[in-house]
Amino acid sequence: MKVFVAGVDGYLGWTLAQYLASRGHVVAGADLMLRRQWVDEMQSWSAIPIASMSERLRAFHQRYGKTLQFWEGDLRQYDFVQKIFREFRPDAVVHLGECPSAPYSMVDAQHAVFVQMNNITTTFNLMFAMRELCQEAHLVKLGTMGEYGTPNIDIPEGFFEIEYRGRRDRLPFPRQAASWYHWSKVHGSNNVMFACKLWGLRATDVMQGVVFGTRIDEMGEDEALRTRLDFDQAFGTVINRYCCQAVIGHPLTPYGKGHQRRGFLPLRDSMQCLRLAVENPATRGEYRVFNQFEETYDITQLAQKVQAVGKKLGIDIGVHNLENPRAELEEHYYKPDHRHLLDLGYQPTHDVEAEMEIMIKDLLPFRDRIEAKRQALIPDVRWDGRREKVKFVG
Amino acid sequence: MKVFVAGVDGYLGWTLAQYLASRGHVVAGADLMLRRQWVDEMQSWSAIPIASMSERLRAFHQRYGKTLQFWEGDLRQYDFVQKIFREFRPDAVVHLGECPSAPYSMVDAQHAVFVQMNNITTTFNLMFAMRELCQEAHLVKLGTMGEYGTPNIDIPEGFFEIEYRGRRDRLPFPRQAASWYHWSKVHGSNNVMFACKLWGLRATDVMQGVVFGTRIDEMGEDEALRTRLDFDQAFGTVINRYCCQAVIGHPLTPYGKGHQRRGFLPLRDSMQCLRLAVENPATRGEYRVFNQFEETYDITQLAQKVQAVGKKLGIDIGVHNLENPRAELEEHYYKPDHRHLLDLGYQPTHDVEAEMEIMIKDLLPFRDRIEAKRQALIPDVRWDGRREKVKFVG
Repeated sequence: MKVFVAGVDGYLGWTLAQYLASRGHVVAGADLMLRRQWVDEMQSWSAIPIASMSERLRAFHQRYGKTLQFWEGDLRQYDFVQKIFREFRPDAVVHLGECPSAPYSMVDAQHAVFVQMNNITTTFNLMFAMRELCQEAHLVKLGTMGEYGTPNIDIPEGFFEIEYRGRRDRLPFPRQAASWYHWSKVHGSNNVMFACKLWGLRATDVMQGVVFGTRIDEMGEDEALRTRLDFDQAFGTVINRYCCQAVIGHPLTPYGKGHQRRGFLPLRDSMQCLRLAVENPATRGEYRVFNQFEETYDITQLAQKVQAVGKKLGIDIGVHNLENPRAELEEHYYKPDHRHLLDLGYQPTHDVEAEMEIMIKDLLPFRDRIEAKRQALIPDVRWDGRREKVKFVG
Repeated sequence: MKVFVAGVDGYLGWTLAQYLASRGHVVAGADLMLRRQWVDEMQSWSAIPIASMSERLRAFHQRYGKTLQFWEGDLRQYDFVQKIFREFRPDAVVHLGECPSAPYSMVDAQHAVFVQMNNITTTFNLMFAMRELCQEAHLVKLGTMGEYGTPNIDIPEGFFEIEYRGRRDRLPFPRQAASWYHWSKVHGSNNVMFACKLWGLRATDVMQGVVFGTRIDEMGEDEALRTRLDFDQAFGTVINRYCCQAVIGHPLTPYGKGHQRRGFLPLRDSMQCLRLAVENPATRGEYRVFNQFEETYDITQLAQKVQAVGKKLGIDIGVHNLENPRAELEEHYYKPDHRHLLDLGYQPTHDVEAEMEIMIKDLLPFRDRIEAKRQALIPDVRWDGRREKVKFVG
């Protein structure tokens, strides 16, 4: 299949391009390289050094024996998206071209507006260009499990059937996101749902759990094929951040009481799931929602797992909770369904510790890079609007 | 109270400024005068001629004995909003500064993006500036009953308590809007709900029904105080459009089967309700939702009412359905609650025919203006993306 990856320079995008190419798909992509700027703005960088796009493309061609067609430009410009789709005519469009950070969206009014505008506009332009130029193509949009928040009832996959005052209906499951970023994903989900109903767009909306991991096997050893790995407060997700803390001997830092429970999955499982979505497209007009994660964990459990893996590798790691910069429940009910991808054949890795071991080993050579940006590990973007480093608790 | 009206040049905004001033409130407002441009873009104009803002302000001062402080500028610019709030320090902010047209948002990709960006950004800027400069102020945001769509169950006011798989929770009622514009209002509602939780913002989100009417009594007879009355496919709402059709002997044109049922209220009731919201502010952190309408009607019923009123005035009016340019259910269950405003003292006018009679009499002198833009009465913006005039049915 011909697959267009929006945001192909990113953590998931660069990995997915390779994963799909190794499976025989023809991949093209676009990026404005903003992720590199955003992380720089957060005074950090990728723990694993990443190559320029031209080096990446050269290495890609060498390893996979085919060219990755690439456009550098702004997907917020409709004519740019039109140009790409006229040239490439994708069968599937994977939208990884959104700004993926909750803290980044919480910095101030300008960042909140930027994140929502960027994410909504790119989604619109991809959808409209699909309608105009490749009506049979399938949109795989990356959402997040964070769209649902933490309701006191089970979380179904997108829709639920309920009874209310003696009548029944099947309705979209209410969303209760907890950052301007997460709401941008809800707004996008709503827009995609409507386009499916309106135009017969085919779409899969992926409510993805928190991804962790430094590699997939397909990448091999060429350094230009490595994907980025962020550890700063805004773009570093929790397990990735823990592993970076581990290699520099920094305590692991759950926020608050540390019993926030979330769905997680390794990078290799994310790739497996996105491939399953791409290879099994939604039907015309179908808007389907996949809750995409391997298992739920509480973030203190995960810190303990990183600790145990560290011990095995001879690294002694502490756990020291930080004040929670976010406004979120730290103890709560959490039971999301995740049946749809299993039904399509998803085989979860089910070995978080093994993945953590690979990660720590991958990160050890870059101890100095992490050390150099050590201050980026401690959040100062607070949900109450203040910009002030949080303190260790107790 | 000091009330800031965003979008004070609009149909509701200009009316509300007068209504509140006549009740002793100190009113200020801002506008970029875009509504005048949008209606012009739809090749139409207001049936009732409207004065320039400088004439309006002069007449306002004369009638109400006080100055309406006015800023012409763009609420999408955060520093513009900051400047206003530094100077005016409102107790209440009424957000009528959004683009209010479903068809306008359905023209193409650019219009869809424009409407969502405009509506989300202005809401963000108002909220952030309130947090920064007037934390005790109360936001009254104009939403629409159209956010809910037409579910097969009763529609509560914003939230509902449900049981699902044996557990209970109180959740936001799922939204199923039916245009990019209506979704922009849902996105805004979600953002406001989150700001209340996050910062303790006080907010009332008004799910307003379809408003109709040419005047409120407070306006008196000065022509510079009249508010606009649109009848084009994009900015003319159904009863307003019917009344304009009636005065030029054009058949009334329900769309499709014509049994779409919606909540309606006269302009004077809208003013009464918005005043009740302003004068009874939400508490800190409270996000309350008012379903604001007087009664539900199906659009064929309403055409028959206009017909009857016309007959009384000696005007013979036909009803001729048009193909429906929209994608919507034309026969459906519809039972929204509307208790909250009644509890605050809302006294519905309950005389739709009397209002229609006033409207037709007000519009008769402007027959030529409506006739001159007759073509604007027939929609060509279709929900399937085509731009082609719809045909009469049968």
